[in-house]
Amino acid sequence: MSKSNKIYLDYASATPVDERVFQVMQKITKENFANAGAIHEFGVSSEILLSQNREEVAQILGAHADEIIFTSGATESNNLAILGTVQKNNLHIVTTNIEHASVLETCKYLDLPAGRQGNQEIEVTYVPVEENGIVNPEKIRKALKKNTVLVSVMYANNEIGTIQPIKEIAKVIRNFNKVNSTKVIFHTDATQAMNYLPINVEKLGVDLLSLNSGKIYGPKGVGLLYVKRKTPITKIMHGGEQEFNLRPGTENIPLIVGITLALKITEKMKEKEAKRLTTLRDYFFAKLLKLQYEIKINGDSVERLPNNVNITIPKIPSDLLVIELSAHGIYASEKSACKSGDKKASHVIQALREGVDEGSLRFSLGRSTTKKDIDYTVKSLESILTKLSKWYT
Amino acid sequence: MSKSNKIYLDYASATPVDERVFQVMQKITKENFANAGAIHEFGVSSEILLSQNREEVAQILGAHADEIIFTSGATESNNLAILGTVQKNNLHIVTTNIEHASVLETCKYLDLPAGRQGNQEIEVTYVPVEENGIVNPEKIRKALKKNTVLVSVMYANNEIGTIQPIKEIAKVIRNFNKVNSTKVIFHTDATQAMNYLPINVEKLGVDLLSLNSGKIYGPKGVGLLYVKRKTPITKIMHGGEQEFNLRPGTENIPLIVGITLALKITEKMKEKEAKRLTTLRDYFFAKLLKLQYEIKINGDSVERLPNNVNITIPKIPSDLLVIELSAHGIYASEKSACKSGDKKASHVIQALREGVDEGSLRFSLGRSTTKKDIDYTVKSLESILTKLSKWYT
Repeated sequence: MSKSNKIYLDYASATPVDERVFQVMQKITKENFANAGAIHEFGVSSEILLSQNREEVAQILGAHADEIIFTSGATESNNLAILGTVQKNNLHIVTTNIEHASVLETCKYLDLPAGRQGNQEIEVTYVPVEENGIVNPEKIRKALKKNTVLVSVMYANNEIGTIQPIKEIAKVIRNFNKVNSTKVIFHTDATQAMNYLPINVEKLGVDLLSLNSGKIYGPKGVGLLYVKRKTPITKIMHGGEQEFNLRPGTENIPLIVGITLALKITEKMKEKEAKRLTTLRDYFFAKLLKLQYEIKINGDSVERLPNNVNITIPKIPSDLLVIELSAHGIYASEKSACKSGDKKASHVIQALREGVDEGSLRFSLGRSTTKKDIDYTVKSLESILTKLSKWYT
Repeated sequence: MSKSNKIYLDYASATPVDERVFQVMQKITKENFANAGAIHEFGVSSEILLSQNREEVAQILGAHADEIIFTSGATESNNLAILGTVQKNNLHIVTTNIEHASVLETCKYLDLPAGRQGNQEIEVTYVPVEENGIVNPEKIRKALKKNTVLVSVMYANNEIGTIQPIKEIAKVIRNFNKVNSTKVIFHTDATQAMNYLPINVEKLGVDLLSLNSGKIYGPKGVGLLYVKRKTPITKIMHGGEQEFNLRPGTENIPLIVGITLALKITEKMKEKEAKRLTTLRDYFFAKLLKLQYEIKINGDSVERLPNNVNITIPKIPSDLLVIELSAHGIYASEKSACKSGDKKASHVIQALREGVDEGSLRFSLGRSTTKKDIDYTVKSLESILTKLSKWYT
């Protein structure tokens, strides 16, 4: 981000809209505002656009068009995936202790004894990740029970960027399903993974997969849930019968066209961009470790997203670091922005080092990030640490 | 809509985006993409924009900023209003039989004996409207019980445009609450009313009010729920603590700025536009009634939205009429577009004339509609009726 010399390193939190996506959405907003449910010519043209885009999305994911449910974002997709599949009493869910808040809080809600779920008894197992921030598929296997209905494990973590062994977990579930009467549904939140990792749902072996447009250089306010055919799921909001009766509300043609093109562009540049950013990320880590300050890398150094640099600098408050960096024109993040309203330590960092209440600093790189940005960032961080360490060490 | 000589008369279904709203959203999309939850300077600027817009919306509604919850649209707002307030067993809801699907289907879901609500026992009274499509507040009063928790009555109907006596119903509820221990919450869906009717929440006397951007010349994909302070309500989706912990997900600054400006423009031109369209609507009705065909007006002819013309032409299928009109370049609607996937008669029309299964044709006027459009539409309809009546009468 060269604009007015600011260095934006918070791409995991929000991405700018790709210029091509922006242009197409402008056109659609002007030309195709009709309700896709209307049967006049103008409505039909919206309906056609909707179908075409759904088909294109399906192709990218290796899915069928009728398996793509457009939502308002990954938070809604994750809520639909969990609340929509856990519909009876005495069921069991398996997840990990480093999921995004939209998965974790939904599980916690179902875990509660009271609430709208009435006398529903839902049990949740939060499988702890290893010290490197990756879950052991064997531990998922051990957590499965006869009444397990859903396993939800994110594809890549939003804070520390660790990549979870989704294919291996899918295999564990397939084997379990072979010898059990109840079918365990496998959900993954692929929001952060989409930019850099393969996304074919069949190869991954998932039944449900969440994506968000606002993290892949598409417009905010739209996401999707892939729902494999025959997966038992019901809607969580009620109204019209849009989106195969799984998500009511007027279909948002401009945003749907936006996420579709964003997915196409992302898919096309994924491999090259992953290579470029992996090099840049490792260069960033190497420079950080050369500084004369104690710096811990959070999460596995190999099995992590190419754009994720997450560190802990002991003793120095991470929110202060973010603010100091901001004063230098560098935009980074402490914890996940989605939870930064509260002042508790990140549940993800706590999951890595039990009992240690430490802050964390996340730099997330993106399409505009250059080597020069990294050099300037490390240099700035060094001078900030020189200043702050007098007070905090 | 002069564009390529098409006459768009489906504004109740979807509105184009106002050019000023469009321009502002473009700017914001480019300049303020940062996550409002981030604590760096760029995130803070998003957070400030969010607060400013929330404050402006509150002023328009005569509310406090902390009473405005931004959602993905009125369908979500209505779901939040109902599912979020009906959280315990053995409660009772009062609504009418002509509500929008997002209210009616949500009530029906709660009304079911099974489902995620577990053993929850919720009773719903669907108060029938009178023959003119307006509910009698006295019938609402009679429907109230000791365990009534929520009354949900739309401000103006989306199909037939009838305006409900919201103030009178609010008074009925206030009086009921004075002598009862449980407080009845009053919700209104004001989606269709916003363009033409006063919207001050205090004067209306409501606790909850839903609005949608996509029907007031704002962007699709954003709406809001006004939640009066101290109203007991909980979120229906889980995740981050955005929107005063009532609606999770990254705040959508471009869309929020869009709905805010759309509301401001609508509020400013409301009175003048209501007068202009009332004249045009009555002119339209007068011309229709002069045709040599049997035409019934659906809904009260006075207490109706200035832009709504809804008629039944007996014997001739209304979907055929919409398609014939479309071939003449005129875009109208049969029933409500939100339900046009199914082929049952409209629940609203059925509510007006019990036992009669008739179609309906809706013309909804808007900011670009002219007298010339109406003249051409009536002339076209006449020639269509001349052609079709040979086959259907």
